[in-house]
Amino acid sequence: MTAVASFNPQAFRAALSTFTTGVTIITTRNAEGEPVGVTANSFNSVSLNPPLVLWSLAKSALSLPAFTENRHWNVHVLSAEQDVLSGRFASRGENKFAGVSLDQGINDTPLFTDCTARFQCRTAFTYEGGDHLIFVGEVLAFDKSELPPLAYQSGQYALATCKPRELLRLGAEPPPECSYTEDLLGYLAGRAHYQLLDALRRLLHSQKIDEHAFFVLSVLCIQDNLTLEEINDYVSYTGREVTQSLMLFLEKQGYVAPDKQFGVLRFLLTAAGRELSLEQIALAKAVEQQLIEKLGQADSQVLKMLLKRLIQATDPGLPDLWAPASQEFGARA
Amino acid sequence: MTAVASFNPQAFRAALSTFTTGVTIITTRNAEGEPVGVTANSFNSVSLNPPLVLWSLAKSALSLPAFTENRHWNVHVLSAEQDVLSGRFASRGENKFAGVSLDQGINDTPLFTDCTARFQCRTAFTYEGGDHLIFVGEVLAFDKSELPPLAYQSGQYALATCKPRELLRLGAEPPPECSYTEDLLGYLAGRAHYQLLDALRRLLHSQKIDEHAFFVLSVLCIQDNLTLEEINDYVSYTGREVTQSLMLFLEKQGYVAPDKQFGVLRFLLTAAGRELSLEQIALAKAVEQQLIEKLGQADSQVLKMLLKRLIQATDPGLPDLWAPASQEFGARA
Repeated sequence: MTAVASFNPQAFRAALSTFTTGVTIITTRNAEGEPVGVTANSFNSVSLNPPLVLWSLAKSALSLPAFTENRHWNVHVLSAEQDVLSGRFASRGENKFAGVSLDQGINDTPLFTDCTARFQCRTAFTYEGGDHLIFVGEVLAFDKSELPPLAYQSGQYALATCKPRELLRLGAEPPPECSYTEDLLGYLAGRAHYQLLDALRRLLHSQKIDEHAFFVLSVLCIQDNLTLEEINDYVSYTGREVTQSLMLFLEKQGYVAPDKQFGVLRFLLTAAGRELSLEQIALAKAVEQQLIEKLGQADSQVLKMLLKRLIQATDPGLPDLWAPASQEFGARA
Repeated sequence: MTAVASFNPQAFRAALSTFTTGVTIITTRNAEGEPVGVTANSFNSVSLNPPLVLWSLAKSALSLPAFTENRHWNVHVLSAEQDVLSGRFASRGENKFAGVSLDQGINDTPLFTDCTARFQCRTAFTYEGGDHLIFVGEVLAFDKSELPPLAYQSGQYALATCKPRELLRLGAEPPPECSYTEDLLGYLAGRAHYQLLDALRRLLHSQKIDEHAFFVLSVLCIQDNLTLEEINDYVSYTGREVTQSLMLFLEKQGYVAPDKQFGVLRFLLTAAGRELSLEQIALAKAVEQQLIEKLGQADSQVLKMLLKRLIQATDPGLPDLWAPASQEFGARA
């Protein structure tokens, strides 16, 4: 930690922004009856009895007169998906309310939908706060949804993940001289993958299909007419090789059909193959849905986001499974 | 979203707590010169010019007189590792400062170390706030570290992960009829694992050892004197089988030594094997460290935490690699 000798606004702002906050939009109607709204992260609770909350608004804000004239205003704690709305109300644009679905709040104040929580307030006090005015409002009504909230930290939107009180341990504490620990990302990613694969395998068992066949059919379901080499490129992320004999097995089962043109063997997905694959993916998704319910929607979203960042950071250049078949790819085969 | 008809304090508290905050401890000295501190998440910035911040304290708090009498106090934005400190200062215990490392703040106020940010303040205003008193302080000095901050949401400690403005995409957008997408956890975990394994493989290449041998040596490094069956139990999370011939290869290289007693073949790690394994783990850790630098320390911690939760939620009952060899395990072999 380094003490900051000179008091520069940038550094002060950076230090303040380390304090995590939620994001709110606060709305009212101005004297002309037009809806007015501003994004604010200076919201906080003050008192339970009486129920009071506060926030502060720059004295230079265009919306200041609306909030000093109309004592009724609504605080919307934004949900994780409302970052675009936050951006819109943080800027000075016209017509911020265009296309926004509204409920009617107390005293006809605008009330957003799909928020994490909403507080309908009436100004109790306004206090001097330097270049800002502090609004303390009495909460007249409130409601909350189950939508995970949007957070804000160091100038960026964020999602919060619950930090368990105890350090999460899978196994016993390793002896101090042991350098291979469960905290290695490689170990965790490997074990997570293995266990998910194990669940998939149990699922596929009843269909007499193994996970290799599942991956091949999934790839062909996205795009078929591929050579064995191309199929292998696409499933290389599984670390397994697809063999000629697996393709022959799938052909015998009626799931794929070979197509030889100009001496090049390509594989097409049959209608039966597509049906089976879609059925399998639906099964896999149902299992994944159960897992997401255990982890929670918000934390699952964070996990996926971080896995994608890990994948981007370590990508050796795998082909894009979802890209439409390109000239380049065709030329390479 | 359901409107709450009756205004019950629990529901009000629950709605308020959806607003994410950081966690601060605010300290001062009382009239007797004793250090006083309270945990508060009601902190927020108010004004840049003049630099003002605010927080509120319950009028019933034992520490209220200290903060009304001493105009000097310090706000500590806690770092991710300071949740225990937060808990201590949120309770009414004696000797909260025992063993806490302190810097000297302005006017001899106590100043914690290892925080994310610190603000040394002097009361500018105190305002009425129902069952709380609102303190607005002028910031006289501040500093910040690079430590990730602790967050708080819905009554639980949390860690915030940056939410990118654009949806993170690895590949092209899949066609609408395509149900196998990159957003499947199974796909993401698989690809992350494969890419990490690929990095490990490149690392091991120079040592003429493959990743299977790496996992076997790592297991024996944690505990040796294991049968082939036991080794396989421990590396089952990799989804690969360790064969007799791999063990023979490792024996020929001088990394493991067989030990047959009562007709049971067990494997010991030789000094050369231990040396090689530690060297490999150090290499793997160095690669992982580079990855963690790319992801950021805080986000890596969240990723590991969420992978552990995924592993716990899907564990088919794998043996604990780090548990000391137990009677039970020995009996089973």
